[in-house]
Amino acid sequence: MVSDSLAVNSLGHLTCGGADCVELAKEFGTPLYVFDEGLIRRTCRDFKRSIDEYYDGNGQVLYASKAFACKEIYRIISSEGLGADVVSAGEIYTALAAGFDPANLFFHGNNKTPEEIEYAIKNGVGRIVVDNMTELDTIETLAKENDEKVRVILRIKPGIDAHTHNFIRTGQIDSKFGFALENGEAMEAAEKTAKYENLVLMGFHCHIGSQIFTTEPFKAAARVMIGFMDEFRQNTGIVVPELNLGGGFGVKYLDSDGQLPFEVFMQEVSSTMKEKAASLDYPMPRIYIEPGRAIVGPAGLTLYTVGCVKTIENIRTYVSVDGGMSDNPRYALYQSDYDIIVANKAGQKKNYTATVAGKCCESGDLIQEHAPMQRPEVGDILAVMTTGAYNYSMASNYNRIPRPMAVMVREGEPRVIIRRETFEDLIRNDL
Amino acid sequence: MVSDSLAVNSLGHLTCGGADCVELAKEFGTPLYVFDEGLIRRTCRDFKRSIDEYYDGNGQVLYASKAFACKEIYRIISSEGLGADVVSAGEIYTALAAGFDPANLFFHGNNKTPEEIEYAIKNGVGRIVVDNMTELDTIETLAKENDEKVRVILRIKPGIDAHTHNFIRTGQIDSKFGFALENGEAMEAAEKTAKYENLVLMGFHCHIGSQIFTTEPFKAAARVMIGFMDEFRQNTGIVVPELNLGGGFGVKYLDSDGQLPFEVFMQEVSSTMKEKAASLDYPMPRIYIEPGRAIVGPAGLTLYTVGCVKTIENIRTYVSVDGGMSDNPRYALYQSDYDIIVANKAGQKKNYTATVAGKCCESGDLIQEHAPMQRPEVGDILAVMTTGAYNYSMASNYNRIPRPMAVMVREGEPRVIIRRETFEDLIRNDL
Repeated sequence: MVSDSLAVNSLGHLTCGGADCVELAKEFGTPLYVFDEGLIRRTCRDFKRSIDEYYDGNGQVLYASKAFACKEIYRIISSEGLGADVVSAGEIYTALAAGFDPANLFFHGNNKTPEEIEYAIKNGVGRIVVDNMTELDTIETLAKENDEKVRVILRIKPGIDAHTHNFIRTGQIDSKFGFALENGEAMEAAEKTAKYENLVLMGFHCHIGSQIFTTEPFKAAARVMIGFMDEFRQNTGIVVPELNLGGGFGVKYLDSDGQLPFEVFMQEVSSTMKEKAASLDYPMPRIYIEPGRAIVGPAGLTLYTVGCVKTIENIRTYVSVDGGMSDNPRYALYQSDYDIIVANKAGQKKNYTATVAGKCCESGDLIQEHAPMQRPEVGDILAVMTTGAYNYSMASNYNRIPRPMAVMVREGEPRVIIRRETFEDLIRNDL
Repeated sequence: MVSDSLAVNSLGHLTCGGADCVELAKEFGTPLYVFDEGLIRRTCRDFKRSIDEYYDGNGQVLYASKAFACKEIYRIISSEGLGADVVSAGEIYTALAAGFDPANLFFHGNNKTPEEIEYAIKNGVGRIVVDNMTELDTIETLAKENDEKVRVILRIKPGIDAHTHNFIRTGQIDSKFGFALENGEAMEAAEKTAKYENLVLMGFHCHIGSQIFTTEPFKAAARVMIGFMDEFRQNTGIVVPELNLGGGFGVKYLDSDGQLPFEVFMQEVSSTMKEKAASLDYPMPRIYIEPGRAIVGPAGLTLYTVGCVKTIENIRTYVSVDGGMSDNPRYALYQSDYDIIVANKAGQKKNYTATVAGKCCESGDLIQEHAPMQRPEVGDILAVMTTGAYNYSMASNYNRIPRPMAVMVREGEPRVIIRRETFEDLIRNDL
């Protein structure tokens, strides 16, 4: 199985977090997002433990909440002692509505509006991760107006390319995010920040990509960043105390994907950092890491009902389900891989190949092409694995399809965490 | 200008439907969807007139509402005498909420759920466009249970390929939509329908693609479809009265795109059909066409505020705006072209090239790359043309960004037709 959440019970049904997926579909209807709370919590603890064991506990895990943001996930994350990376006032609002401590929020984004920045300052958001010069000036102005000292971290492009899909590669100089290191922009921004009265420069941030399966790019980024911190110390005499290495930890979508154990990552990065810091006689900074997909991705799956099976001889079989790109646009966007299981036949062999089509009126509305699965029939419950990240968060009402319900399973017991949208919801803002 | 909605006023500002876009941004905030009611109505009339003039008025224009569905657009479409193509119960619900006559609704889709089919039957939807055998049986069963005679049209794959982008090509046999003609499936479905007691077979439908700029594929499809209708008559003695040729009429996204005048399309298709029908001695069927993008696409634009301009020497300039793939995912999905104008500098030459980036925390969140525009500065109002179709309808809350407001402009006067989402809306269904 592609995720630890999954198993097959005595009825031959797929289970997620111990709950029978066929029963879940019957009780709550489809499409349905299902999350395993146990795996989410275990993964949070794995990340925390890796910092405790290999970095003397001198750091914090921040959940990159854009992967899946709703009130309940902020509660779970918070109860595990994690902070959160937020990327909009909407995410801050949701976190606060869930009772999240604003001091543990790090506010990211390449184009925070002045309204969002003021909202973050007034609500005591812990750090603002500054993206560009315009924003730096805006934060100083608004901090002054609100008579606050704002703790900031600067986002740096370290020039490391993590060799992933073009859309999710962010560390290189040709990126909309952050200050470039090699042209002096990053140093200029850091020196400017140090002079601003209402800003407190806490450190630097970098994010080198997504779905990274090796430690080397992280180690390279860590070396570059500590080198930059040392250079900044040489130029200004200031020792900044924090380094945020971002996220991008690869997760398994298919069985064939190799996954890096999180402790290996921290073990190797930590020793690289100690070496580099020692060579420069730089004090070890407090570290932050920002897993998002790694925490929720493998803990989620989506259940659909098969409505139609269309076999086109010598071409392919289309299995149409009752959701599609409206609840999961990742195949249309990135041709993402997904593992497919017919939930009510999970005990059987995958001896069939089919294309899973959504119900949207668009040819590109596919969930997966030519995927191995059990032989699908009308009425079957089809499960798509590893949809915990970037599915609900990217869902739309395309074709005026209401967004699905989400349930969280704890020790086999499901509870609704996001209600299914209604038709009334669809026209709520229509005049 | 790429659309008839657009002009430049004496202040050098872009106008849409006679309204100053800079003023609109000031009054309603950004991001803002702006629609020109005048152009929408003129286009509806152009399509209607083409049927009146070249097809003896024996047909109806159906607005493909998936392009942009909200209560007000259904009101406008209805008042112009058009019917509508709907693809979900959510679209039917929205149309009914706007007072749309259900008899003028055509219900499409490759995987209508039994609940949706029953909802359509109970609400008197005019035609169900049947996609597959499972659905055909379900409709018959539900029609019987509800003691209704249901008028159906069968969706046929005519085997015509309109040579457009892979994602939006739907006429060929390898498609999730419809019954294939060449393998006998279409004929089998038609004969089965004719035998079903509670179904009334009104005719056939085909849809050969999107963004089609020549008449040839439509003419080829019309020939194939009339041939099929004749074959069905030979087999059964039944003369079906209706032919729905779908949509796919190309619209201009860039000045360099050529656009086919709608009357030319109907003129040529009409004469092809007359010729083919005459050769087979088949009575001319009532015709339906389904423009969606063609009606609303060029009548809409999106206004953003520039928050940051980041020039990376020898590489490119990123202009970050206060929206992005959350309100317009089409560049991320299809690398779609868009014409860009800095609304407050519309009177100036486009002597600058930049990449328009959204504010979502994702490298692929771009609206357009390397686009000609006036030199952008922080605080400018940036307008993206031809966003009337598949922008609001595909919008998400990715990064928990509220969906923008939409205003409709009539003779220079704007009115809100969709309210801006609030933060409370974002957590309405969160438990």
